[in-house]
Amino acid sequence: MADKITSRQEDYSQWYIDLVRSAKLADYSDVRGCMVIRPNGYAIWEKMQAALDGMFKQTGHVNAYFPMFIPESFIAKEAEHIEGFAPECAVVTHGGGEELAEKLYVRPTSETIIWSSYKKWIQSYRDLPILINQWANVVRWEMRTRLFLRTTEFLWQEGHTAHATPEEAQEEVIRMINIYRTFAEEYMAMPVIVGKKSESEKFAGADATYCIEAMMQDGKALQAGTSHNLGQNFAKAFDCQFQTKDGVLDYVWATSWGVSTRLIGALIMAHSDDKGLVLPPKLASRQVVIIPILKGNKDEVRARARFIAKTLNRHGIPTFVDDSENNSPGWKFAEYELQGIPVRIELGPRDLEQGKCIVARRDTFEKTELLLDDELTINIEEILNNIQQNLYDRALQFRLDNTVEATTWEEFKASVEKGFVIAHWDGTHETEALIKEETKATIRVIPTDEEYRQQYNMDEPGTCIRSGKPAAQKVVFAKAY
Amino acid sequence: MADKITSRQEDYSQWYIDLVRSAKLADYSDVRGCMVIRPNGYAIWEKMQAALDGMFKQTGHVNAYFPMFIPESFIAKEAEHIEGFAPECAVVTHGGGEELAEKLYVRPTSETIIWSSYKKWIQSYRDLPILINQWANVVRWEMRTRLFLRTTEFLWQEGHTAHATPEEAQEEVIRMINIYRTFAEEYMAMPVIVGKKSESEKFAGADATYCIEAMMQDGKALQAGTSHNLGQNFAKAFDCQFQTKDGVLDYVWATSWGVSTRLIGALIMAHSDDKGLVLPPKLASRQVVIIPILKGNKDEVRARARFIAKTLNRHGIPTFVDDSENNSPGWKFAEYELQGIPVRIELGPRDLEQGKCIVARRDTFEKTELLLDDELTINIEEILNNIQQNLYDRALQFRLDNTVEATTWEEFKASVEKGFVIAHWDGTHETEALIKEETKATIRVIPTDEEYRQQYNMDEPGTCIRSGKPAAQKVVFAKAY
Repeated sequence: MADKITSRQEDYSQWYIDLVRSAKLADYSDVRGCMVIRPNGYAIWEKMQAALDGMFKQTGHVNAYFPMFIPESFIAKEAEHIEGFAPECAVVTHGGGEELAEKLYVRPTSETIIWSSYKKWIQSYRDLPILINQWANVVRWEMRTRLFLRTTEFLWQEGHTAHATPEEAQEEVIRMINIYRTFAEEYMAMPVIVGKKSESEKFAGADATYCIEAMMQDGKALQAGTSHNLGQNFAKAFDCQFQTKDGVLDYVWATSWGVSTRLIGALIMAHSDDKGLVLPPKLASRQVVIIPILKGNKDEVRARARFIAKTLNRHGIPTFVDDSENNSPGWKFAEYELQGIPVRIELGPRDLEQGKCIVARRDTFEKTELLLDDELTINIEEILNNIQQNLYDRALQFRLDNTVEATTWEEFKASVEKGFVIAHWDGTHETEALIKEETKATIRVIPTDEEYRQQYNMDEPGTCIRSGKPAAQKVVFAKAY
Repeated sequence: MADKITSRQEDYSQWYIDLVRSAKLADYSDVRGCMVIRPNGYAIWEKMQAALDGMFKQTGHVNAYFPMFIPESFIAKEAEHIEGFAPECAVVTHGGGEELAEKLYVRPTSETIIWSSYKKWIQSYRDLPILINQWANVVRWEMRTRLFLRTTEFLWQEGHTAHATPEEAQEEVIRMINIYRTFAEEYMAMPVIVGKKSESEKFAGADATYCIEAMMQDGKALQAGTSHNLGQNFAKAFDCQFQTKDGVLDYVWATSWGVSTRLIGALIMAHSDDKGLVLPPKLASRQVVIIPILKGNKDEVRARARFIAKTLNRHGIPTFVDDSENNSPGWKFAEYELQGIPVRIELGPRDLEQGKCIVARRDTFEKTELLLDDELTINIEEILNNIQQNLYDRALQFRLDNTVEATTWEEFKASVEKGFVIAHWDGTHETEALIKEETKATIRVIPTDEEYRQQYNMDEPGTCIRSGKPAAQKVVFAKAY
């Protein structure tokens, strides 16, 4: 089993690192800033990919693959884009034993290489829309890295769409941020705030960036997904015009949107505890572990454990048995708590005699007795559903408890050390920069969700928390990962 | 629709390029040697991935992800390996705006970066076996590229396993080459010869390389998958020792195995024709297209077409309707033949009256009438199964017809221009090199499959086709992609 995990209270950052490494989710590699995603961590990514890919396809998207090398001249075509990304790129200068005539950037994001293809594919409105997604690795050189949350190389999906009208592009931007929200809330059991980024926080090359922001257990914010309205910026940079229905030439309208392996970090920080990983059942590749207590008639206990596993698996509940005799039941309990298996079934000879088993929930550690009868599958299913719901409810309550509406600057400064702060902002970049400088907090999101806006009266005019100038609305501030 | 495709007879290479581009499977990018895999091509890769990934997991493998950057010093640790791969690598010299202290190679294959992790994970026999697979992009600088078959960047899977004994490693090597064979034959409908590579054709760093070789329609060979027994070479290079059951230290035994997007090229070259792509149904993401003939009561025809599509989809036969009025039925017939949709259903008002439809097979162009009754699904299923089987049978017959057992050098030289040649070889590298120099043909495979060996009496001793020296066995020669 793993080394002891530092408690969250003692040192939250160390707790995170200890957990990721003890649960064998990821490891630093010998390559600066790059991680190894170990099988336990990659299994979570595969579950995430399957769910997201299904939702993308249901909304008409198809997958493709574009080169990971981008010629320097392409990156340079969109002015904001090169300013934002070039400094953090890895650069290939030699290939096949020779120095290259033009440097190649390892993609930090693929707008430029993709729009150089779209330009060839699009002549008329009949070629639109293009709704393409790509699953890929990307590289952004990072000075300070943290497993899953910030590494030089990471895995992600990036959608890149092309449309005939700005309205259609905007619809797509909203559709995709809502898909991310659904995924975060229904699969990750992680409540998120949906909204827009401020001008200074938006994507380099976008007209507008929408995002989902989640609260971690230390009160910090984590940007979990973004959806960009790129306007005609990339079409203009790559001279991609099309013939409209009316027979005139216009530049194509674009969007892009993405989530990454960073979501695994968010998942850990949203739900896990001092004993290890806590996984929402919908993202657990193994939902139930059966641990036979091997005393007395071992064969009978083993056989029954396997029979139960077979039954649960047949009903779509991925279950496995650990009946090895190298480790004690106590060791196994701790190990699978560390690994975040949502449900543990304990089964001993005395349980068999009494026709029952002990079922332990990973989220609450609550233990219940269940009869070994025809209802067992349904009962386990119900417990799994309860865990999924409880994790969401718990995280939502935590966010509520750690969100403060600040009305004074003193209150703002104190509160933003602990959680989200909702406060009036005068809308200027200067004030935003000042607040960041003084508190390290940024505007995480300008919520667009009506329910959230009403909950905190965000439309109410007032005076800016920092400048004292008139402010049209409130926004959400926090320190961020 | 697409431009005309050059016929195979006229120019086989041009036919291939025309087909790949017209069917929108892939496109050259603006980056030298790199391709864009377009949605039609990527959909084939997704089907391949799903089938292979399922087989890997059924045999106990799990997925993980390792960094794509490999420090120069790692590549250098295995002598044969660096000699084989370094000259074809892309090299990153700058990151985050600064020159790197140590150059990073973009992975051409991942043995070295993976074994630098395995060294940390393996202490005892209890940590073994490790059965990890990775889906990733790799880069090998290529001077002469061909879409799917040979490009600078390509996608693949690479399995990397670690074992306590050489016997277990060898079992794994054979298990995986057999999985590749099953995949090639049952999914791709492509017969392959299973066997070993000669010393000079094996993987740089392996003790032995097993492969599957397929015949393309021009009689050339294509290596479709490899499985390497790496012995203790990489464990020694990375000083990866473990405590055995007997309590002594030993180096770990290793295997690696992979297939790539090259398989898409193989699939095209094995089955397709002058009208376009021919896809085996098991790798077609869309198996049936319904084309309503829109005359008379259009709504009724449309409604019935949709109803049939819904029924087929519900029974697991992916079906779509093209009822657009922009293009004629004839245009659509040609377009979906080009795209390789295995079955086309034509449905007009007169068919409806008579309660029937016309079903056309992509492989043979044969048309049959089917009744629009409860049996339709089963009948379509049967046609799909027949297509799958027919493609395999046809390819196997083609290989039989284009395989020659040569007994004279003249016969060898003439035959190797057209297909596979089975001939005696004296087992020396010198003769192998001489034959390659004089004919451009190489030893593709030393078959291990008993049935194949018997078919061509490969164990029969004789005299070498080139040197005239005694030869213990026959081997398979061909020109290769």
